[in-house]
Amino acid sequence: MKRVCLIVAYDGTNYHGWQAQSNAITIEQILNESLSKFLNEDIEVIGASRTDAGVHAEGNVAVFDTKTNIPPEKIGIAVNRTLPDDIVIQESFEVPKDFHPRKCDSVKTYEYRILNRRTDLPVKSRNTYLVYKKLDPDRMREAASYFVGQHDFRNFCSSHTQAKSTVRIIYSLDIEKENDEIIITVSGNGFLYNMVRMIAGTLVDVGLGRMEPEKIPQILATRERVFNVNKAPAKGLTLKEIEFEI
Amino acid sequence: MKRVCLIVAYDGTNYHGWQAQSNAITIEQILNESLSKFLNEDIEVIGASRTDAGVHAEGNVAVFDTKTNIPPEKIGIAVNRTLPDDIVIQESFEVPKDFHPRKCDSVKTYEYRILNRRTDLPVKSRNTYLVYKKLDPDRMREAASYFVGQHDFRNFCSSHTQAKSTVRIIYSLDIEKENDEIIITVSGNGFLYNMVRMIAGTLVDVGLGRMEPEKIPQILATRERVFNVNKAPAKGLTLKEIEFEI
Repeated sequence: MKRVCLIVAYDGTNYHGWQAQSNAITIEQILNESLSKFLNEDIEVIGASRTDAGVHAEGNVAVFDTKTNIPPEKIGIAVNRTLPDDIVIQESFEVPKDFHPRKCDSVKTYEYRILNRRTDLPVKSRNTYLVYKKLDPDRMREAASYFVGQHDFRNFCSSHTQAKSTVRIIYSLDIEKENDEIIITVSGNGFLYNMVRMIAGTLVDVGLGRMEPEKIPQILATRERVFNVNKAPAKGLTLKEIEFEI
Repeated sequence: MKRVCLIVAYDGTNYHGWQAQSNAITIEQILNESLSKFLNEDIEVIGASRTDAGVHAEGNVAVFDTKTNIPPEKIGIAVNRTLPDDIVIQESFEVPKDFHPRKCDSVKTYEYRILNRRTDLPVKSRNTYLVYKKLDPDRMREAASYFVGQHDFRNFCSSHTQAKSTVRIIYSLDIEKENDEIIITVSGNGFLYNMVRMIAGTLVDVGLGRMEPEKIPQILATRERVFNVNKAPAKGLTLKEIEFEI
């Protein structure tokens, strides 16, 4: 028995998120089915990040246990031939038997892409959020700086979070402008349910002048759940990378 | 009667190109149907660039004649509500009655996107061409410089071109590297059938070391059709912009 780790990329448009559900197609389910068929044993993957419906990934991480003699490095390439085009395993390799991607420290990096122009561009609309009023990236950068560090993000997660603590550390939160796109890149030691989308929604509010940047530290300092923070749509969000210390 | 101009963006993945055909769905056909229904008269658009199956656009141009009293500026926004998500009119405005987008001078700009990494990324695969061996952008830049200027591009178009002359001017041809993407941007006074895809295919061959940059001027100087030039796939190509002097 060995434990194999997968780096998985997907276009989340046609899936009800990562986690297997009884009544909807999910990434986890497709991976379980394809791996089970290919390896001829019952495979159940454990995902690092249970991304929401419509969210994309370039580097989500999953592990599974297998009895196979096939070299772990070859499993990814072989299984890609049986996967739909919108899920592609980037790499596969062996990891220690006790490695659990949700139970060890990691740095996760997400990207949120905003298309800031009057009308949508079909080629970009699958993974960008169209904001048709002019955004001010400098205001957004000022607001972003307040999120960096260790904070209680209780007002930046959906109320049905299962997390015990709502304290998280954000290592960096960068705003880049590339032509008519604004790209938010955020790295942290973990993110609460909908946290990145709520940070992105807040940055959009600031960029449109609907909120002052100085409001962010006030919300972060509040010990109660009082603020109604806007949540940006799922399709703009991509899980870029998860770094572990194995 | 007035002539209205449309700037049209589309994701070409699900279409058999621009030009109306009897047995396949095309961009032109969808525009004709939606405009005819909305304006309640028979509309036939004239497109500036008859893009191939699978090619995308951010700014293709089309004109049509109409008797409507609806202000031309409002037609685009209204018709967008009746169009599928993968076709979006960016702007609509009145032009002189004799303006014909294929019969006047223009500068066209195309972008060809290459994803240069070992495995494909589903979120990017609709509008990038995956080249999994390492490309050398400096070699590609050297090769690109030979294309700029007025040349006979007879070896850089498909043999069933309808053009009388195969001489064209390329004003600029730039190679940009952004992380694992290589973006080719080319502007010219016109492009022959498959010309951009054949230039992109040649630049890939040079970038992989399969062809020397100095081979380009030799091919361009040849007065016969002798060379078999690789054609990069349609999905990496986007028509970015057409500038007219109206």
